[in-house]
Amino acid sequence: MDFTREEYVSRMKKTQKVMAEKGIDMLLVTDPANMCYLSGHNAWSFYVHQGVLVTLDDEMPYFIGRYMDAFSGVVKTTWLDEAHVRAYSDTYVQNPLNHPMERFAEIIKELGGEDKTIGVEMDNYWFTAAAYQSLVANLPKAKFADANVLVNWVRIIKSEQEIEYQRRAGKLAELAIQAAADVIEPGVRQCDVVAEIYRAQIRGTEEFGGDYASIVPMLPAGENAGAPHLTWSDDKYPENIVIAIEIAGCHRRYHSPLARTVCVGKPDPKVTDVANIAVEGLEAALATVKPGIYLEEVEMAFRKVLAKHGMEKEARIGYSMGLNYPPDWGEHTASIRGGDKTVLQPNMTFHCIPGMYFGDFGVSISESFRVTETGHETFANYPRKLILK
Amino acid sequence: MDFTREEYVSRMKKTQKVMAEKGIDMLLVTDPANMCYLSGHNAWSFYVHQGVLVTLDDEMPYFIGRYMDAFSGVVKTTWLDEAHVRAYSDTYVQNPLNHPMERFAEIIKELGGEDKTIGVEMDNYWFTAAAYQSLVANLPKAKFADANVLVNWVRIIKSEQEIEYQRRAGKLAELAIQAAADVIEPGVRQCDVVAEIYRAQIRGTEEFGGDYASIVPMLPAGENAGAPHLTWSDDKYPENIVIAIEIAGCHRRYHSPLARTVCVGKPDPKVTDVANIAVEGLEAALATVKPGIYLEEVEMAFRKVLAKHGMEKEARIGYSMGLNYPPDWGEHTASIRGGDKTVLQPNMTFHCIPGMYFGDFGVSISESFRVTETGHETFANYPRKLILK
Repeated sequence: MDFTREEYVSRMKKTQKVMAEKGIDMLLVTDPANMCYLSGHNAWSFYVHQGVLVTLDDEMPYFIGRYMDAFSGVVKTTWLDEAHVRAYSDTYVQNPLNHPMERFAEIIKELGGEDKTIGVEMDNYWFTAAAYQSLVANLPKAKFADANVLVNWVRIIKSEQEIEYQRRAGKLAELAIQAAADVIEPGVRQCDVVAEIYRAQIRGTEEFGGDYASIVPMLPAGENAGAPHLTWSDDKYPENIVIAIEIAGCHRRYHSPLARTVCVGKPDPKVTDVANIAVEGLEAALATVKPGIYLEEVEMAFRKVLAKHGMEKEARIGYSMGLNYPPDWGEHTASIRGGDKTVLQPNMTFHCIPGMYFGDFGVSISESFRVTETGHETFANYPRKLILK
Repeated sequence: MDFTREEYVSRMKKTQKVMAEKGIDMLLVTDPANMCYLSGHNAWSFYVHQGVLVTLDDEMPYFIGRYMDAFSGVVKTTWLDEAHVRAYSDTYVQNPLNHPMERFAEIIKELGGEDKTIGVEMDNYWFTAAAYQSLVANLPKAKFADANVLVNWVRIIKSEQEIEYQRRAGKLAELAIQAAADVIEPGVRQCDVVAEIYRAQIRGTEEFGGDYASIVPMLPAGENAGAPHLTWSDDKYPENIVIAIEIAGCHRRYHSPLARTVCVGKPDPKVTDVANIAVEGLEAALATVKPGIYLEEVEMAFRKVLAKHGMEKEARIGYSMGLNYPPDWGEHTASIRGGDKTVLQPNMTFHCIPGMYFGDFGVSISESFRVTETGHETFANYPRKLILK
């Protein structure tokens, strides 16, 4: 197990406290990160319907999933005992006639939830419209409450063990950026660079290996810098280009994202200027971090640096992150942006990424960090400047 | 563009024909593979709400998404013109107060869909309960029809260009299996093997590179063979173990999955026996493939071989596949299993994976193939036997 039983029980207690405050009797968690957080279940099983069910009075949640995941996986690898594992057969898998939520409804009834208030994660990737419709149809006496990101907010303060995993992930992120920096040059194909990033992310160090990051490596470059979600091709890099690399190290599903920017060829002075301003802004933002301030104050420090140079940036410059699965390593809770009144507390962890994108280039230099008792600690240690090739 | 404009138009026509048959006036496609199939949009942008809207009379669909994906990405990289691109601003991103589907509803109204029948992919990963609820609330006069896997079924017969991408993916799959075979030995960590698999998948050949596969490499081994969705760790392989490797090559989002099994140490005769039976069954199944037969006949041929050896297998032994995004490379249409009455036609493509899992080991030897005019063509060319190390 990646955490002690005590840690899982403590996570459950925090979740149950919020449930009680919100009048939720049973919580059906379908977000794989929230499921892993409460149960320890870590598998690529989220392509079928599955969930973790939390009641108000049982310190252990129930896992509900496909037979092969439930009894061969969860019972062997998590803190849950067999009495807290329920399965559905393969006849419910991608079968238009039988939705797995029919089985979920039976289990909710079995546990006394038939006429109770059931919390569901309404806007979670893995809770489809059909899943909700089936649950409502099969539990006509129940009330449903939107519990979207309820557990995500419980996750926002990390334990010492979680922080340790993020530190390791930070080391993996350094290795991945270095692997890219080592191989990028004119005439090298994008796919060859990404291959080395993956290899570094997964091999890790002699002490620990890497897990798959929740997002594939992103390398927006040149005139595509403004379309940051386009992925790599097998095109070759030209003699002159600016490549913004955003990756994460991941260890036991805990992430430390990191962005650095590589200049191939002699850098245009405007690129160097933007990089200097971005780093000045990033460092001003990091310098404000300490317990007790509002998260928006971090963004404000960055914004002031930009204003000094006659610039502005509309989008948020960061977000809470940690444990996650594809398609996103962000936690979907606090954001480093104007108006975010989250009060910083020790062991909150963020990725601060004030990316600056223009028509023909983009610069991205970021840090992942935790809030300490007095300031911040970054998870990676990699020079905050353009990488010149 | 990865395909000609004519090919996109032909895909649209096929989709519109099915829509008309089902009484659907407008189709909102949210599956990233279906979106890519109709629009050409290929990006890691599915972590926010997005869609492609198909009307009955316009040969071009509309893309609806986040601003940075729509105007920097779609307009530059797809066959869609700017008039067919609509965006929502970042204030709709992960904001509990403003759901992006409010904007989708406005666009549907703008295009005359206010009181029409709108098809939606009800059980698609990327169409959440909240998305559906918002759409229904904001289009009170519209009717909604379940169009789940409608476009998936249009995708089932591949074009020559799609087949060519799958052939390339087959070559990548061979390279990835070989990379694993080369490095596995006692004392090597699981993560070190996976690192080499990724590197081979993405580097590709000198002629073409690789894309990210929709599922991470799976290596169920030893007593965890029955829990095939657990992912790798940094544990070292012992002196004797059987490792079932399932990966895919992926090129321009087109997959060719492939499984092979590595025996570390002297193979137990029962493992060799199972492997021989699995290969005999796989080859019997492949030998039946030709246009005009029911897909279930392919499974029946496998089942007969198993029965001859006094064995049986309950789960399906394969599925249609091709274009896809995480979390699955399967197409969610036809399955190679008893009862599947899909009639085979040239250029349907399947992954036949009759995995055999027991308490302490699992054997998986598979092929991806297309149906030809007279039989089948496999996409990879790799010996169908245990790999002994």
